[in-house]
Amino acid sequence: MKIAILGYGTVGKGLVQMIEGNKNKRNIEITSILVRNENKYKSSKYANIITESIEDIFESNIDILVELMGGLHPSYEYIKRALENKINVVTANKDMLAEYGDKLVKIAKENKVSLRFEASVGGGIPVLKPLTESLEGNSIESMYAILNGTTNFILSKMYNEGLSYDEVLKEAQELGFAEANPEADVEGYDAARKLSILSTLAYNRRVYWRDFYLEGISKIDMKDMDYAKKMGCKIKLVGQSNKKNEKVSGFVRPVLVDNNSLLSKIDNEYNIVVFNGDSVGELSFVGKGAGKEPTGSAVYADVIDIFDNRIANIDQFTQDKIEVEKTISNKCQVLLRFKSPKKEEIISLINACIDQYDVIEDNDELAVMVYADSEYEINNILCLIKDKGYCKESRKLLKIS
Amino acid sequence: MKIAILGYGTVGKGLVQMIEGNKNKRNIEITSILVRNENKYKSSKYANIITESIEDIFESNIDILVELMGGLHPSYEYIKRALENKINVVTANKDMLAEYGDKLVKIAKENKVSLRFEASVGGGIPVLKPLTESLEGNSIESMYAILNGTTNFILSKMYNEGLSYDEVLKEAQELGFAEANPEADVEGYDAARKLSILSTLAYNRRVYWRDFYLEGISKIDMKDMDYAKKMGCKIKLVGQSNKKNEKVSGFVRPVLVDNNSLLSKIDNEYNIVVFNGDSVGELSFVGKGAGKEPTGSAVYADVIDIFDNRIANIDQFTQDKIEVEKTISNKCQVLLRFKSPKKEEIISLINACIDQYDVIEDNDELAVMVYADSEYEINNILCLIKDKGYCKESRKLLKIS
Repeated sequence: MKIAILGYGTVGKGLVQMIEGNKNKRNIEITSILVRNENKYKSSKYANIITESIEDIFESNIDILVELMGGLHPSYEYIKRALENKINVVTANKDMLAEYGDKLVKIAKENKVSLRFEASVGGGIPVLKPLTESLEGNSIESMYAILNGTTNFILSKMYNEGLSYDEVLKEAQELGFAEANPEADVEGYDAARKLSILSTLAYNRRVYWRDFYLEGISKIDMKDMDYAKKMGCKIKLVGQSNKKNEKVSGFVRPVLVDNNSLLSKIDNEYNIVVFNGDSVGELSFVGKGAGKEPTGSAVYADVIDIFDNRIANIDQFTQDKIEVEKTISNKCQVLLRFKSPKKEEIISLINACIDQYDVIEDNDELAVMVYADSEYEINNILCLIKDKGYCKESRKLLKIS
Repeated sequence: MKIAILGYGTVGKGLVQMIEGNKNKRNIEITSILVRNENKYKSSKYANIITESIEDIFESNIDILVELMGGLHPSYEYIKRALENKINVVTANKDMLAEYGDKLVKIAKENKVSLRFEASVGGGIPVLKPLTESLEGNSIESMYAILNGTTNFILSKMYNEGLSYDEVLKEAQELGFAEANPEADVEGYDAARKLSILSTLAYNRRVYWRDFYLEGISKIDMKDMDYAKKMGCKIKLVGQSNKKNEKVSGFVRPVLVDNNSLLSKIDNEYNIVVFNGDSVGELSFVGKGAGKEPTGSAVYADVIDIFDNRIANIDQFTQDKIEVEKTISNKCQVLLRFKSPKKEEIISLINACIDQYDVIEDNDELAVMVYADSEYEINNILCLIKDKGYCKESRKLLKIS
């Protein structure tokens, strides 16, 4: 079996290492590796197969193209061209799949080749294969997940070491855990893209990532962490979605999770994905969500599946797009924070609207945990408070159980 | 695709329900269901395909035989016959696989048919497929797991409700969670069989279940639970194995697990399997380890894999048997309990032998947490204490981290 690899960064190196380490078991020949600047690799062991020319890649006779460059373009064009040339494709590129997954799956199908992307969600955790193959007979009702290692690292460190968001972000950037422009991670885009891939496969309708309710972690402050500790919780950036009566709803947002929950045990670079299937019940997968070797392991598994001709159906991507409900329409628990001198007025307004609530702090600021019938109810209260001039800016933080 | 099902108990019914529920997606025809007494099913919807005759089954033209009868015989003979007749087999029978997996895998291979058994380990959790397919490129270094729902239910209830082992076992038997003869569950045999299947697939050598160190939960008493609580732990029946320098070691035994660990969050009917791979790192799978629908879901997935011609290599079962080291040869933490008036003598003996230890109780009985270089060291101390006549009977409980 002959493969070409586009991109020779962390994951590319992890994959090459894995192919080398398994040479005695699997005869996989790497014909070429595409890089931006081949001069950098003059002394590399792989110098003779490293190239800057995509034409070199397509001229060689390959069975699989492994795309590990990231970004939308030219990844999309290269993958499209490979599929049209009846070359199987393995990719770890969630940005591109979240955007063009529908088109590419269609092209792969028309050309009777495989497009596989286990590494695009949950890094080293096998999650797409269990979902599409092992749970095929299940109707997936809902899922929740921690899908982004950078934000999980930041939140873990803020919680454990009492540091501010800015301090930890800076450290994460210095350590290489966060990008110079961290937007895709900290604003939840990366997690939303992964959640959209999972939701599309699970609900058999194309779910677009920008349709989720999206809220990042950049506004999480020390006070949030203090409240979390006080209530026996941690704060995690959680993606959640569900399908009910042919309607999908979902979000990526920071939430309070109880210290007794599995979610609260997922720290730093670890990811978790939890599916609720009608037959199997609750099923959780935990492991490293990123990194050279874990992600390399997932890419390698896709290559082996193609090698062994194990084909799974991912037609879900070609289904019609479904609208996503952004607001939580069932019972929920939300921490509300107000910086305002009119605390009494706010409490009596909440008291008039909501049956159950607990005042968590009534000191520097007012913090109230409210138990509402839906998020609409919460939003109405916040509108009222604003309209009455009690408080201009408030914050809300969902608690999930 | 035509299938026959041997056995129409809980899991059999779960499978039939799943096949019916997915009729619009997959054309699977159940040609016959083997039962012990067909008269019991005269009014069943499936009366016309229910039979007492195994010859009926083999005379019909089937693609897959699904064995859900349990027990060693005649399951083994029926499966063997099916494979020899080039019929694929799906089974949930861990007892039989732990005993005859090597022979059956060989016969399946010779006849170029599939033998699949996802449901034999971890009930509804997809664990064998991720292990054999997704982690193929990894060298699995170790694993630990909670693999038996009955004992996990008993231990959870003892811990949460302060009830004795005998009380909870009786209740579990009344509720149908435990067998009239609970030996296979409470003595750890069931967990050991599952651990042997996982270890065989992971370490590429045949690991026999009776070779593990085996200790059941029937001696766990309220005092153990009290100590656990005092130390911020729970007690779980854990199976653990590892491979190092071509040597496998492993056990199934009750252990103390820290409340901060993932293991401690796995209660009642839930199972967990954790693999440590050289590339992927620590990977955990959590879900329902038994029950009609979860197990039915896993059996169905195996049927679908055969339907779609997805074949995985399980040659590991045909490898030579490997000896299993029963005693822990690295650093470990063990709680020792002594009922004896000679507490001072025991403590000074421990003090002479061990650098680090904590006296947990020195009241009704003596309880000491010792930090040893290996379990051999612990066993030597217990021998000494016995030889010197300080205490005839002691108990030890491993703590894992």
